[in-house]
Amino acid sequence: MKIALAQLDYHIGNFAENTASIVLAIEKARQMDAELVVFSELSVCGYPPLDLLERKEFVQNCLDEIQKIAKVCDTIAAIIGGPSFNTASEGKMLFNSAFFLYGGEIMQVVNKSLLPTYDIFDEYRYFEPNRIFNIVKFKDLKIALTICEDLWDDQPVEMDFARGRLYTRHPLEELSKSDPDIVINIAASPFSHTRKEIKRGIFTKKAKKHHLPVLYVNQVGAQTQLIFEGGSMAVDKDGKIISQLDYFSPEIKLIDTSELDGHKSPVNIIEPSRIEMVHNALVTGIKGYFSKMNFSSAVLGLSGGIDSAITLVLAARALGSDNVHALLLPSGFSSSHSVTDSEKLAKKLGVSYDIIGIEEIFKLFNKQLSPIFKDREWDVTEENIQSRIRSVLLMAYSNKLGHILLNTSNKSEAAVGYGTLYGDMSGGLAVLGDVYKTDVYELADFINEEEEIIPLNIITKPPSAELRPDQKDSDSLPEYEVLDKVLEEYIEHQKSVHEISLLGFDEALVSRIIRLVNMNEYKRYQTPPILRISSKAFGGGRRIPIVAKY
Amino acid sequence: MKIALAQLDYHIGNFAENTASIVLAIEKARQMDAELVVFSELSVCGYPPLDLLERKEFVQNCLDEIQKIAKVCDTIAAIIGGPSFNTASEGKMLFNSAFFLYGGEIMQVVNKSLLPTYDIFDEYRYFEPNRIFNIVKFKDLKIALTICEDLWDDQPVEMDFARGRLYTRHPLEELSKSDPDIVINIAASPFSHTRKEIKRGIFTKKAKKHHLPVLYVNQVGAQTQLIFEGGSMAVDKDGKIISQLDYFSPEIKLIDTSELDGHKSPVNIIEPSRIEMVHNALVTGIKGYFSKMNFSSAVLGLSGGIDSAITLVLAARALGSDNVHALLLPSGFSSSHSVTDSEKLAKKLGVSYDIIGIEEIFKLFNKQLSPIFKDREWDVTEENIQSRIRSVLLMAYSNKLGHILLNTSNKSEAAVGYGTLYGDMSGGLAVLGDVYKTDVYELADFINEEEEIIPLNIITKPPSAELRPDQKDSDSLPEYEVLDKVLEEYIEHQKSVHEISLLGFDEALVSRIIRLVNMNEYKRYQTPPILRISSKAFGGGRRIPIVAKY
Repeated sequence: MKIALAQLDYHIGNFAENTASIVLAIEKARQMDAELVVFSELSVCGYPPLDLLERKEFVQNCLDEIQKIAKVCDTIAAIIGGPSFNTASEGKMLFNSAFFLYGGEIMQVVNKSLLPTYDIFDEYRYFEPNRIFNIVKFKDLKIALTICEDLWDDQPVEMDFARGRLYTRHPLEELSKSDPDIVINIAASPFSHTRKEIKRGIFTKKAKKHHLPVLYVNQVGAQTQLIFEGGSMAVDKDGKIISQLDYFSPEIKLIDTSELDGHKSPVNIIEPSRIEMVHNALVTGIKGYFSKMNFSSAVLGLSGGIDSAITLVLAARALGSDNVHALLLPSGFSSSHSVTDSEKLAKKLGVSYDIIGIEEIFKLFNKQLSPIFKDREWDVTEENIQSRIRSVLLMAYSNKLGHILLNTSNKSEAAVGYGTLYGDMSGGLAVLGDVYKTDVYELADFINEEEEIIPLNIITKPPSAELRPDQKDSDSLPEYEVLDKVLEEYIEHQKSVHEISLLGFDEALVSRIIRLVNMNEYKRYQTPPILRISSKAFGGGRRIPIVAKY
Repeated sequence: MKIALAQLDYHIGNFAENTASIVLAIEKARQMDAELVVFSELSVCGYPPLDLLERKEFVQNCLDEIQKIAKVCDTIAAIIGGPSFNTASEGKMLFNSAFFLYGGEIMQVVNKSLLPTYDIFDEYRYFEPNRIFNIVKFKDLKIALTICEDLWDDQPVEMDFARGRLYTRHPLEELSKSDPDIVINIAASPFSHTRKEIKRGIFTKKAKKHHLPVLYVNQVGAQTQLIFEGGSMAVDKDGKIISQLDYFSPEIKLIDTSELDGHKSPVNIIEPSRIEMVHNALVTGIKGYFSKMNFSSAVLGLSGGIDSAITLVLAARALGSDNVHALLLPSGFSSSHSVTDSEKLAKKLGVSYDIIGIEEIFKLFNKQLSPIFKDREWDVTEENIQSRIRSVLLMAYSNKLGHILLNTSNKSEAAVGYGTLYGDMSGGLAVLGDVYKTDVYELADFINEEEEIIPLNIITKPPSAELRPDQKDSDSLPEYEVLDKVLEEYIEHQKSVHEISLLGFDEALVSRIIRLVNMNEYKRYQTPPILRISSKAFGGGRRIPIVAKY
């Protein structure tokens, strides 16, 4: 049987647009002679709809759209994801469902059994888990239809204090009893630079274990913080990947089930490097945020440092150079190369820029505050005032001209609170907020691989906030090579101070770093949404009580 | 049997302090001749620990402290809440448990069956639900030991699209089979001004249905956004409340089980009014945030409007007048009474204040921006600049002098986006962020009930942001009486535009309001933590995708 895998980019709640692209994909699949076309999890509304699922009219809209889509599925069948009502009198009100559409109607509804409720996932908030296992029979094909996590009952873990068997049910074991011919998995599986191989392993392992081919359809594109890489695939019954769809790009691809019996050679895929995947994820993240918010242009403060330089490049690649604007906001503490390096980069990219010095405003703030502050010494207050003046100017520029402010802070800074609330922590979207500083440098090398796009001086100068004379990041922080490793062990791997010190770091230093992380929860609570590229980003997937003492 | 209900205020993760107050309570209970003392849910670590539960050393700390506490329980027994490891090979790694301590050791561990995962609750994120039901036998008493939601298997709902039976298990039905003598419920049940009667109803109904007395122990105090009112109680087997503990205050109270057989008259409680409960909740919220963050003093911008006036009164009541400071930051658009009314209030409360005019700084910003903005007309940009200048000054004051900035925005404004990001939306804690404007007026009346504390002119003047000449809130918003009702139907009751219009509101107006709510998700994402007093506050309990179109 010819089955089309439809890897599309959905917009949460934009029913008109989602249905239009689904219907268009069905028509394309029909032209490709497909008998069945498979869409991803909750495709009718886009994933994750979050608390919109608590609104009856939202769920009803989903069901209405599925009925419309069913009408198009006359001689071609489709599998589409959407919520459905739990008609039992007890339990959560909804199921996370796969609708099998054929002959102009909904032929069968299969519900998700394993509901991820960890990190950025909150599915048990809305859905009742399925406990009844039926396969779908379509023509001569018996399909074990599963939804994302249903195949993740035994997943590899990235932390010591974690387990792979989070559920007491095992959907594929149950479905196997009905002797299916193929496994179809509709998913909404977000990108993390550490999980590409893990995902591939899930499908190839299941295929091998059950001697069943697996078709996996993921969504693509970004929904605020979450980026979906696509990478849908067909795995044959021996566990070989015989076809894979694009990363970060919508695609419809035809699979012939006759190719899944093991005789075909695995597809020869040149996998992008980790840093290329991160680069492309961030560009996708910016693009998705702007297109879905109906924004077209961005502004950012270009400091002469590496973070704003990288953000500018990524923004220009996502939105086009004409749609990105830079503001250079030097103070009396800015080095001369801050402006010249920034100008060089902006010119290289063809990005327009303006320069506003903040010295005069800074002096006036100090003057107005002096009757209260009297003779108190210069401290972080004055550093923050400069950072906040820049934010006022950037937001004024944004408000007046309609360009959205991009935040340029990196994950290392965000972790230790090396940033000013309402100052450099401002913005509509934090592009690098999940990228450690050492990875920011790797991104710079990747961008400059073939040509010097980012002036070398920006990459080689010692990092500095330039908020007081001769300031360097290394005055108050350890070298980023050390800092980032400690942070990753604490944040991503959830190791304790003692466990981290056993990896060869000075325990007092680790303790000081972790204390900074813990005491800055309050700052991170108010940061812009952060594009997530790791297995543990700051934001909704990491929930730490602000008042906690730990 | 004499049982002490220990209603305490815990600090999340502050093991030393929590254990000390638990041990002290055990000693007090012993002096009262209690044979058993009951603490609340997850009392050893404070509720809600959130993702700290994903850290092994945190869970281990909890277990270590429970062992320490067990040592004190020699001839007196205690029930204490804490996480425990799930020793099965599958399912979540932890249980949410009640530890029965006696004879110097842990005698029995009972796990929570119903895991609330909605609104601000995320328990299935961490815990495996219990499926085995055993009662606890202590001396001649058979105890049906339950944890919070375990008694909420059939709860009244406040929305149309909601159901009371969210679970397929019914713990008390199961436990009843063992013929218990009493139900004990250890809880961490946060305050909502709509749920006081609902809570009482849960316990009295369960008691009546099963002809069993119910002892309910709640925690008290605040954990960032969440405020716990206490209000622990003893319900006799006929469903009469025969004893109730204080609201918003720690208390240890002795109950004799012989009083629970129905012969005793119900306790005569003069229940505080709804608005008094809200007032006390907010004072508790401020007090809890400051004490747990180890902050002692606050600053806020006093505008002459009612929101900042109420916030100042609440802060002074929570922290003491000496620990609260006001900044008056008039612009050229501020009415003269803005300053005089503010001064009058500050003097009345004995709060120190300073005045800094923002006109000069505002002019300088405009001058610096004029080469870029050229002849573009005045718009919301200039309003926002003023608001953000105030934020720079307030944060400078906060940074230099160590006073924490309180945010004064109300829920009506937050809902429709009538506020400036990094301007008046700044602060460490949003005191009124869950209080609709109409309730802000009710709070003013409550505060002024016996004496004019808030100058009447502040209450009676038409609300205005004073960011352009003769501006009034009513220029761009409907009257608050209408706005707040529409907002409540949409946010708390999750009704659709059409359903709200059926309640007698103009559908076009409703539609315009709801559009404002939806398009301002991005602003609310970056607001300070909001003290929660309703059943649906902005913040972690309401998760709406920013890019959604709906």
